[in-house]
Amino acid sequence: MSKVLNFSEVEFRERVRKTKESMCQKGIDVLIVTDPANMNYLTGFDGWSFYVHQGVIVIADKEQPIWFGRGQDANAARLTTWLNDENIKGYTDDYVQSLVKHPFEFVADIIKEKGCDNKVIATEMDAYYFSAKAQERLVACLPNAKFKDGTLIVNWVKIIKSDAEVEFIRRAGKIAEKAMQAAVDSVAVGVRQCDAAANVYHAEISGTPEFGGEYTSLIPLMPAGIRTSTPHLSWTDGPYLDGDTVILELCGNYRRYHCPLARTMILGNAPQKVQDLASVVIEGMNTALDAIKPGMTCEEVERVWAKSIAKSGFIKDSRIGYSMGLNYPPDWGEHTASMRPGDKTILKPNMTFHMIPGIWLDDCGVDMSESFRITENGIENFTTTERKLFVK
Amino acid sequence: MSKVLNFSEVEFRERVRKTKESMCQKGIDVLIVTDPANMNYLTGFDGWSFYVHQGVIVIADKEQPIWFGRGQDANAARLTTWLNDENIKGYTDDYVQSLVKHPFEFVADIIKEKGCDNKVIATEMDAYYFSAKAQERLVACLPNAKFKDGTLIVNWVKIIKSDAEVEFIRRAGKIAEKAMQAAVDSVAVGVRQCDAAANVYHAEISGTPEFGGEYTSLIPLMPAGIRTSTPHLSWTDGPYLDGDTVILELCGNYRRYHCPLARTMILGNAPQKVQDLASVVIEGMNTALDAIKPGMTCEEVERVWAKSIAKSGFIKDSRIGYSMGLNYPPDWGEHTASMRPGDKTILKPNMTFHMIPGIWLDDCGVDMSESFRITENGIENFTTTERKLFVK
Repeated sequence: MSKVLNFSEVEFRERVRKTKESMCQKGIDVLIVTDPANMNYLTGFDGWSFYVHQGVIVIADKEQPIWFGRGQDANAARLTTWLNDENIKGYTDDYVQSLVKHPFEFVADIIKEKGCDNKVIATEMDAYYFSAKAQERLVACLPNAKFKDGTLIVNWVKIIKSDAEVEFIRRAGKIAEKAMQAAVDSVAVGVRQCDAAANVYHAEISGTPEFGGEYTSLIPLMPAGIRTSTPHLSWTDGPYLDGDTVILELCGNYRRYHCPLARTMILGNAPQKVQDLASVVIEGMNTALDAIKPGMTCEEVERVWAKSIAKSGFIKDSRIGYSMGLNYPPDWGEHTASMRPGDKTILKPNMTFHMIPGIWLDDCGVDMSESFRITENGIENFTTTERKLFVK
Repeated sequence: MSKVLNFSEVEFRERVRKTKESMCQKGIDVLIVTDPANMNYLTGFDGWSFYVHQGVIVIADKEQPIWFGRGQDANAARLTTWLNDENIKGYTDDYVQSLVKHPFEFVADIIKEKGCDNKVIATEMDAYYFSAKAQERLVACLPNAKFKDGTLIVNWVKIIKSDAEVEFIRRAGKIAEKAMQAAVDSVAVGVRQCDAAANVYHAEISGTPEFGGEYTSLIPLMPAGIRTSTPHLSWTDGPYLDGDTVILELCGNYRRYHCPLARTMILGNAPQKVQDLASVVIEGMNTALDAIKPGMTCEEVERVWAKSIAKSGFIKDSRIGYSMGLNYPPDWGEHTASMRPGDKTILKPNMTFHMIPGIWLDDCGVDMSESFRITENGIENFTTTERKLFVK
């Protein structure tokens, strides 16, 4: 089969090497990677098959990882990964959502076959698609193994992007700008919210004339009115009303790499409170972005923001940003560095972040964000959309 | 806050009652429901916040379930659920993706506060967003509790839909038809695959003039050419080529209720093998759909299909259909009844299924599907799209 890889085999091998280095430091012989983004990062695997149990097994002394998944998805592994065919292991369909067999019994068999059933095995215990049941079956089938928690091992490897990855995020940024323009053009009093959302989706997926878009790991979050009082509601099929605040948290995606972007819009005469809140958020974000330099810690960035908004009286008690990039639903965040008190991660060139210091009150909210890369002396913004409250 | 519920409070209370009945039969005092579809089913909760730990706690002798989740999502619970405010418990943001605190420590505190820490507690051990780590933290924090596996308890309650739910799926069916028409109209030699996908998304989200659409739990699966050899790849930004087979597995969604629909298209002169495969699949599907009556078992339906295709020489070694309805990414299937050998679930009126007897060979595949409801004497199809191979 004709493989199509998004990165060179050299780059994939380097990612695996770094992962093994981290495993070695933690005394781990076998790492079972089930986070779809981490599977993609190490092997290229790409497909909407994470609704069944699948993963890649990294064994410290084996050259290639081993992909496991549903038999009918093995061709997806053949087409999208750099792995040799003997390292692609599909299970039969009677393992799928069955009450008598579990796919992690199949995984245990692979580990036995490789002679690793008495080794130190780590799983991504807090990853989305790694269930409590999967862990239970694995532990029960491998009584001689020792288990450790391998959550975030690959996430920390991928926090610094290669130049090729950064270029993908730049492209996602072009798509995000286009999606935001579609939103600003479409949202208006009397328009059905679902029709505006449809235009945003169209822009996100069609992309630019040079390159197309892919699905983003969160939906376009486009709440209006009272629904802006909380960050994760989206459109309805009702119309926008005069006086509505509309939050637009959108995203571009190029080959699974994200560039999120948020703005807030006001239809007609919005309450003074929303305008005040927007001014505070924009000023705080500008101040924080201007201050960023490699060598700073994440919590230092948050402190710049917190100091800026302190005088306003508004309070923001959640993180203001996080590392982002390659991902699958339900999240584009990478679950490593967060800009919040206590996070001492040191910023380094080619880390990529989404700063989104939204503030939600009980009856409204304002969201503004920027996605950017840490450079040698500051940041590179991935989008050029004006940093302002849009009023229509 | 002004709540907006999709179903009456009476219907939500009945769902909780049935869930408690099932818990009682299994000797379970407390059920922690983390599957987003099950959370929605019992309480109405709707939001893209399942990327952090959240759930609802059903306690056998308490009237209302208790929602727990991230503090900033508590307003979403206030707006979308029938729960009283005292049963909405938000955790502080320092629990989010933290290395020192885990949200299930917060859940354990709620269970202690309710005096249930020495009871029999069940978790949905094999649900998507319930991680091995969540289980570990819960068990560690509640040493006096006894734990059971509560996977699928709510899923089995929701397998029979209310008439109100069926009406939602009918509406999703209207949207699915429209999305399929957009696909058939858009896919053509020379068109970029991402541009056709963008039109499909637009149709799915804008819905009909009477009602809008929502995001579907899988993306539009629209692979072309060699990528049809496996079921879960989708579009690229390359153009469709003369001779391509294009699979269109699309869906309509109305208020989280799905109606999936798949067809296959041939651009220009496709191999005879694809045409033969399509005839076999359509005949097998027609035969199976015609045979369905309440009282049959799922495996009996599969046997009708298997008998029909046996003469062709093609083999289908995976299930041909499954129960579907209310759901969130990554799946619209309900993980209960599957039409496959060994599944003895008896078909009853108002069960809803997606029959998708796709066959994937090593270099191509054909997908065809129908979504339908079991009626008093047969089935009600949710869509009217012609059951044929589309040739363009």
